[in-house]
Amino acid sequence: MTELTESVTVMMKEFEKLPGIGKKSAERITYHLLRATKKDALALADSIRTVKERVRYCKNCYNLAEEELCEICSSGDRDTSLLCVVEQPRDLISIEATGSYRGLYHVLLGRVSPLDEVTASQLTIDALVKRVRTGKFKELIMATNPTTEGDGTALVITNLLGDFPIKITRLARGITSGGALEFANKEMIADAMQGRQSFLQ
Amino acid sequence: MTELTESVTVMMKEFEKLPGIGKKSAERITYHLLRATKKDALALADSIRTVKERVRYCKNCYNLAEEELCEICSSGDRDTSLLCVVEQPRDLISIEATGSYRGLYHVLLGRVSPLDEVTASQLTIDALVKRVRTGKFKELIMATNPTTEGDGTALVITNLLGDFPIKITRLARGITSGGALEFANKEMIADAMQGRQSFLQ
Repeated sequence: MTELTESVTVMMKEFEKLPGIGKKSAERITYHLLRATKKDALALADSIRTVKERVRYCKNCYNLAEEELCEICSSGDRDTSLLCVVEQPRDLISIEATGSYRGLYHVLLGRVSPLDEVTASQLTIDALVKRVRTGKFKELIMATNPTTEGDGTALVITNLLGDFPIKITRLARGITSGGALEFANKEMIADAMQGRQSFLQ
Repeated sequence: MTELTESVTVMMKEFEKLPGIGKKSAERITYHLLRATKKDALALADSIRTVKERVRYCKNCYNLAEEELCEICSSGDRDTSLLCVVEQPRDLISIEATGSYRGLYHVLLGRVSPLDEVTASQLTIDALVKRVRTGKFKELIMATNPTTEGDGTALVITNLLGDFPIKITRLARGITSGGALEFANKEMIADAMQGRQSFLQ
């Protein structure tokens, strides 16, 4: 790649920094953009700039927003007695996509992770605790990831609210719909066994 | 993906237009850029803008350039008696990477392709013919791709220069170094048989 001009090399290296983009993909994208019309290429560049200039976190729940409040917090159509705690905006999006939840959210923007040196104070846990203590929520649903760190984060929050009268639940765990017992790991089966439900509800 | 803000959705769709980037990759890149610092994200945006504003084709050979002439044409260190014809700048880069050629290039910016409605007049063939007729090249090396269209393009050029006293060659064809005869196709073996060389040179 010695004969690419300097600015092309710079652009290719920028694409290589993106997740899932290796040297070959970056090359392919580079040639694509070299051939593309100026208008099309700048549409991509401008879309990145617009996102970084416009998108911020909702003042209330830390979901992605282009106004002070996100679409969910500013909607009058949600069950304000339920608060679901997720790690990232993408988790919120996954839950929304199912249509099975109509309450509000709180996005932690991460998880407590001693190994990555992420402590509770770097997340939005303080804001969450304040929101719960000053609000009128009836139930707090922990939807952090089913990992050691996700569970740990939920535990930190539960401890901080230990004296506060609110029902705290977490997402059910067990075998996955459509999965096979044969391929389930020990933890999955142990969770499913422990949380077994009445067959006829 | 209903709860992404508008500008995030626009950005994700722009990434989906790139070659090799599907919905999932675009999502992953989107989350990466949302998390990235403004500085890092804008570095990508600006690199694209800079390329589209600065990069042009060399006035002489149509290689990528940031000045009027590309680095190869403006170098005093090349064999000006050899002219190698390639379809795209990336072909030139591949040849340069081998270090086995020290002459000049001419980039056609495509190939004659009746199916894609690409005719000779849309390429830089006129400029090439003029360059050869007014220059002092001793040999013209056809390095178009070894495909029907690449060969056809080379033939068009050869015909246009039929009356001009210049040696016209093409890249050797045969079995590939490191390949296995077992997996070579008919054309490869036929080419190799036809162009067989003296074993001890």
